[in-house]
Amino acid sequence: MTNANKIVNFMAQALDLARQAGPETDPNPRVGCVLVDANGAVIGQGRTQQVGGPHAEVMALRDAAARGLSVAGATAFVTLEPCAHHGRTGPCCDALAATGIGRVVASMADPNPLVAGQGFERLRAAGVAVQVGPGAEEARELNIGFFSRMVRKTPWVRLKAAASLDGKTGLRNGVSQWITSEPARADGHAWRARASAVLTGVGTVLEDDPRLDVRLVQTSRQPHVVVVDSQLQTPPGAQIFMAGRPVWIYAAAQDGAKAAALEARGASITFMPNAQGKVDLAAMLRDLARREVNELHVEAGHKLNGSLLREGLVDELLVYLAPKLIGDGLDMASGIHTGGPLADLAGALPLEFRTIERIGPDLRIVARVAGRDAF
Amino acid sequence: MTNANKIVNFMAQALDLARQAGPETDPNPRVGCVLVDANGAVIGQGRTQQVGGPHAEVMALRDAAARGLSVAGATAFVTLEPCAHHGRTGPCCDALAATGIGRVVASMADPNPLVAGQGFERLRAAGVAVQVGPGAEEARELNIGFFSRMVRKTPWVRLKAAASLDGKTGLRNGVSQWITSEPARADGHAWRARASAVLTGVGTVLEDDPRLDVRLVQTSRQPHVVVVDSQLQTPPGAQIFMAGRPVWIYAAAQDGAKAAALEARGASITFMPNAQGKVDLAAMLRDLARREVNELHVEAGHKLNGSLLREGLVDELLVYLAPKLIGDGLDMASGIHTGGPLADLAGALPLEFRTIERIGPDLRIVARVAGRDAF
Repeated sequence: MTNANKIVNFMAQALDLARQAGPETDPNPRVGCVLVDANGAVIGQGRTQQVGGPHAEVMALRDAAARGLSVAGATAFVTLEPCAHHGRTGPCCDALAATGIGRVVASMADPNPLVAGQGFERLRAAGVAVQVGPGAEEARELNIGFFSRMVRKTPWVRLKAAASLDGKTGLRNGVSQWITSEPARADGHAWRARASAVLTGVGTVLEDDPRLDVRLVQTSRQPHVVVVDSQLQTPPGAQIFMAGRPVWIYAAAQDGAKAAALEARGASITFMPNAQGKVDLAAMLRDLARREVNELHVEAGHKLNGSLLREGLVDELLVYLAPKLIGDGLDMASGIHTGGPLADLAGALPLEFRTIERIGPDLRIVARVAGRDAF
Repeated sequence: MTNANKIVNFMAQALDLARQAGPETDPNPRVGCVLVDANGAVIGQGRTQQVGGPHAEVMALRDAAARGLSVAGATAFVTLEPCAHHGRTGPCCDALAATGIGRVVASMADPNPLVAGQGFERLRAAGVAVQVGPGAEEARELNIGFFSRMVRKTPWVRLKAAASLDGKTGLRNGVSQWITSEPARADGHAWRARASAVLTGVGTVLEDDPRLDVRLVQTSRQPHVVVVDSQLQTPPGAQIFMAGRPVWIYAAAQDGAKAAALEARGASITFMPNAQGKVDLAAMLRDLARREVNELHVEAGHKLNGSLLREGLVDELLVYLAPKLIGDGLDMASGIHTGGPLADLAGALPLEFRTIERIGPDLRIVARVAGRDAF
């Protein structure tokens, strides 16, 4: 095997470790680290722990120490630049340098302005060789929400829809439970689990009273819930209110009594009106990024979906298609174009299909809004 | 290799030959035949020729003769029961028996009531061993339209739609050209080519003035065109009228002057009204089967699509999904449920996804209406 191939393989192992990191790392990026000695033997492995816990590099160093192995002169393969700042934990670049490690191979620089190359600089200053590059695309995809928040200052917005083959997400009478199968719904919960927060509109709360929690798959933590609710119509008895889970409501109109009732249920209410008296969705996303939301998972109705799309705020679609036809029913998204229904096909919102999978009897299509990942 | 495996392999070769038979065989079934001597050597191969030309068995016998090889005692692997009737050609069972062939292995019996086991009987009576079974499912799928016409006395109805990911087949203003890519449109032409006829509604003729011919792929013959046109509104100057191609118009109301103008363009008009003054679609399908239509390829608007679905006349959907969102636009099918929009999800029309393929930037989904192939 060539040296370049070895590097790719060790980085692939580090990426696998990163993938195993669960949602408890949120809002930290999921990172993996593999330590390899001069003979090419793996002497330590680690991945990001629960937020506030050790990062991947420290876990890998601890793993080597637990095995009684020295890492002096070894190479660390890590899927992101080792951090250089005192955040919830100490800087990983210093921890690595202190061990006498010889080389760090990182997939890419950390977009966090508190790191942004300083980790590499500090390593080089300590005499550690640094190589950057292999596995960059996978490493970035694995933490697309973190990158989005760091670079664009907004979450990565993934809009989920479950529809019949003819694109209907519900019946005219509002019934939408359940169009897709149990396996597809469980898969949808796995995508909820990886998100920092799940967003919906008050229409969905009033219509379906969903819990919007992760229950069909194992998870180490529940995502926050965000409700777009201009008039504070969320019922204080809604099922989204669960012990220990923050609910963030974005509103456009003040109403002290309603606000007090919702706050009594644990809601945090933010008034963020736009000129039309609706919630300013773009400002809301910036606020959610400030609240450390990396990936925002949207499960809403056709109107809110349409507004998010029209305002250019959606990055990705997660669409489940069930093998059935509904005919006259509810659409995935309405009002997605400024100025009313399209008059020219050239104005359709361009997507790119990324993955197509069968999930039980259904299909799962992940499509990205063209160009949205170019940041 | 076991004997059973050998049989499966030779039948797979015969099925491959059948698949190579082009649309010029229509309305005959596409059949392949492989002749194998006692040593397991292939001594002759053939497939169905243009309608009126030789069948697969005769082509295989000719192939062996051209190579100077005797077929006495050989085994014929054929994907359908050899015919026993004088149709456009003489009976294949007699042609096989006359050569002193020792055994016939056929995928399945011919559903044609003029054959239906008589081919096997005549072979056995002539001292030829007969085995039936291997490859039956593939052989039937390859000729699903022929089987449908023979067994159900109606064509196999395949409804094609090209839509955005959100299920829209056109804009509110009627524009639908083109939602999908050139590769997807070419693929759609390949499906048109294998059909005996392409059906549309007069609304599509008036709106899009399509040619509905096969031009983006090579073909040996153009499918017929069928128009559902209750009031004989098809313009005599419509592009569907092409030299040498039959256009069959089904109408509900007599209009001598309009009919004469259309007949002057080569149309054949059939009046087939139902009690509501529309075209009786089920009766039309029976009539198309009498006209030897095996597969009927439907490219129509949401109303005719909906009527065909509501009346339980659609067997399969061929759906192309383009990576774009249209939002407010035209649906794939409307009015698909008796009594108006569905009030209960249990009433959605159940499908089964058969194949999912990427075609250029688009997706192609073949879905079958649940249970429609159980005949």
